[in-house]
Amino acid sequence: MGGKVSPFAPSAYPELPALDGVRLATAEAGIRYKGRTDLLLIRFDPAATVAGVFTQSRCPSAPVEWDREKLGAGKARALVVNSGNANAFTGMRGREAVEASAASAAAAVGCGAEEVFLASTGVIGEPLDPAPFAAHLGRLAGEAEAGRFIDAARAIMTTDTFPKVATRRVAVGGGAVTINGIAKGAGMIAPDMATMLAFTFTDAPVGQEALQSFLAEAADGTFNAITIDGDTSTSDTLLAFATGAAAARGVPSLDSGDAAAFSAALTDLCRDLAQQIVRDGEGVTKFVEVSVSGAKSGASAKRIALSIANSPLVKTALAGEDANWGRVVMAVGKAGEPADRDRLAIWFGTHRVAFQGERDRSYSEKAVSDYMKSAELKLRVDLGLGEGQATVWTCDLTHDYISINADYRS
Amino acid sequence: MGGKVSPFAPSAYPELPALDGVRLATAEAGIRYKGRTDLLLIRFDPAATVAGVFTQSRCPSAPVEWDREKLGAGKARALVVNSGNANAFTGMRGREAVEASAASAAAAVGCGAEEVFLASTGVIGEPLDPAPFAAHLGRLAGEAEAGRFIDAARAIMTTDTFPKVATRRVAVGGGAVTINGIAKGAGMIAPDMATMLAFTFTDAPVGQEALQSFLAEAADGTFNAITIDGDTSTSDTLLAFATGAAAARGVPSLDSGDAAAFSAALTDLCRDLAQQIVRDGEGVTKFVEVSVSGAKSGASAKRIALSIANSPLVKTALAGEDANWGRVVMAVGKAGEPADRDRLAIWFGTHRVAFQGERDRSYSEKAVSDYMKSAELKLRVDLGLGEGQATVWTCDLTHDYISINADYRS
Repeated sequence: MGGKVSPFAPSAYPELPALDGVRLATAEAGIRYKGRTDLLLIRFDPAATVAGVFTQSRCPSAPVEWDREKLGAGKARALVVNSGNANAFTGMRGREAVEASAASAAAAVGCGAEEVFLASTGVIGEPLDPAPFAAHLGRLAGEAEAGRFIDAARAIMTTDTFPKVATRRVAVGGGAVTINGIAKGAGMIAPDMATMLAFTFTDAPVGQEALQSFLAEAADGTFNAITIDGDTSTSDTLLAFATGAAAARGVPSLDSGDAAAFSAALTDLCRDLAQQIVRDGEGVTKFVEVSVSGAKSGASAKRIALSIANSPLVKTALAGEDANWGRVVMAVGKAGEPADRDRLAIWFGTHRVAFQGERDRSYSEKAVSDYMKSAELKLRVDLGLGEGQATVWTCDLTHDYISINADYRS
Repeated sequence: MGGKVSPFAPSAYPELPALDGVRLATAEAGIRYKGRTDLLLIRFDPAATVAGVFTQSRCPSAPVEWDREKLGAGKARALVVNSGNANAFTGMRGREAVEASAASAAAAVGCGAEEVFLASTGVIGEPLDPAPFAAHLGRLAGEAEAGRFIDAARAIMTTDTFPKVATRRVAVGGGAVTINGIAKGAGMIAPDMATMLAFTFTDAPVGQEALQSFLAEAADGTFNAITIDGDTSTSDTLLAFATGAAAARGVPSLDSGDAAAFSAALTDLCRDLAQQIVRDGEGVTKFVEVSVSGAKSGASAKRIALSIANSPLVKTALAGEDANWGRVVMAVGKAGEPADRDRLAIWFGTHRVAFQGERDRSYSEKAVSDYMKSAELKLRVDLGLGEGQATVWTCDLTHDYISINADYRS
């Protein structure tokens, strides 16, 4: 919020093509911020198929509970997102605010409240006033235009320093479909500004069951494989909307046909957005890929990779450009997963620093220290036990992370 | 290491009384540091009963493996501790260094190598040269004197800013016994200087089985209930030595008699030492007690308490003196334990800030913000689900933590 822009902010943004039946509008609703947009309405005419993946938090926000419940019907006419207030831990008033804003959106676009999906991001525990929704949504429904995805991405930012957008085009059955995506988040949870939010939009003809399965698969190695600080939001929400408009151009349904290319493109787009979140991690100076191979299972590899990626000591070493592989050993050891010290090998980039339970005999402090000065780093661990592997992405832990989070709310 | 001294450093240290048959000596062996002691020999004549609790790391240090193996016999004639090098992830050379230093100590005090216990703390992955052990231990065995516990505590420091000692006296069967303890650690793991080490010494007559059981029980709510950064050391070691000398004064054996007072005193001493480690946490400005009640079980309460105590967002809020209870909600939610948002209550000190799933209706930002300025803080969470409870201790996450850990090794 007025601080430094991430060194990984893109110099230009891709243009996201318009999608038939998807119109977007944003407003300065003054929910918390002044002088910037903070309310987004996206309308789907006709109704889009919708799938969703949500936070595993036991204390989810009111909009997360609403969306989970409404997902059953699988149809969306509107998506409403606000920044500035997460509507989380707001009790009965939170549920009332969700119902009131869904009713406002339903009246604005002319649909049932159960066809309205909601997401909120911002401070936890402050009651959310539904009045700005009632005041602005009617007008936004009229103003909504196709193609305004970058505006949408800006309206949902909190501590983000750049908007996050991505687009993919996939050949399907002789035709082609588009997938657009937007996301926000500068931490798995942005400080106190709870939330990672991401939304994807496609004109592919696909039913809810198939879309849900593609989305769950896509999330696993992308949004569920990033970490800024290990702090899981109360509001994490990933929704996919499919209009089916491509059917009019002769694109066959993905429900029964070959959906491999679509599924791969959706995963690729989610990985792009997820990595953008890490590249905007609070205080980030290093973008880091952590790969673990040779684990007993894929799940075990992922837990070890996350143990490394979440370790404050590993992350501060990265910030200090210190080739401190001993801390990687520590993080492997504490993960609680099968590991045999004497089979462990560790690489920083192409430099093998540890092998068979001790420092690599050819270790060069100078060469590895030079590598640590790169903005993008790769850490690789091989456990030598099995076939399990996983990759996660993280950033370093810096003074700016402390400044942002020790001073943010006040 | 020449940095700021913790604001919680004691202004005076308790005097630890001499224990019959326990003699201590330290040396400047130049293992890594200059101008300070870094090698400690403690000799037990006759042999003491010994019990131990060690790191759960899958990549334990060579001395941890040695001690685990030697614990079976349950008898100790010497304890040798060095700082500056953890002898962790040093492969075959690490095992050879352990054997060589145990042999040096055995020759020096005149016992079998299997009666020598070892601990090392410092950098991970550097081969440990056994030569300084051979050079100094013979002399130290001759110089060793009773009562030099504070010198011992100083010799084992790494990033610690003050030595950690404690003593208790317990009435047992008409007589009395003493328990002395020393510890080091400025993180659950000090950065790269892997290790929390703690040693207790008593003249109580007690067999190995009983001592092991008292020690395991004592560790659970003390050393196993503190966290600086959630990073578990490769070298964590807690050893208890009992000389039995009090038997000569008519104190009955604790093996069969009433040992409740002794066990309570050992736990109390361990809690004292454990809290001293937190009070010397890297970059600490706040000492924080986190209590969870109303959980489904004690284990569940502890996992939730640790989720709060390890959350970077909670810890930075504490550093910023920000009454950001929304981050406590987040940390409860992400713990993966049974929790019902709408039954949750949270206190900062005596201020109830959240109740029944939302901000407390009587919440006063001013009153709570004033409380957050205290150096010692209490966070309490009640889940309203069951009888499980747990308390852990932690510190805040500050700029100094980043400075210490981003720059330490280089």
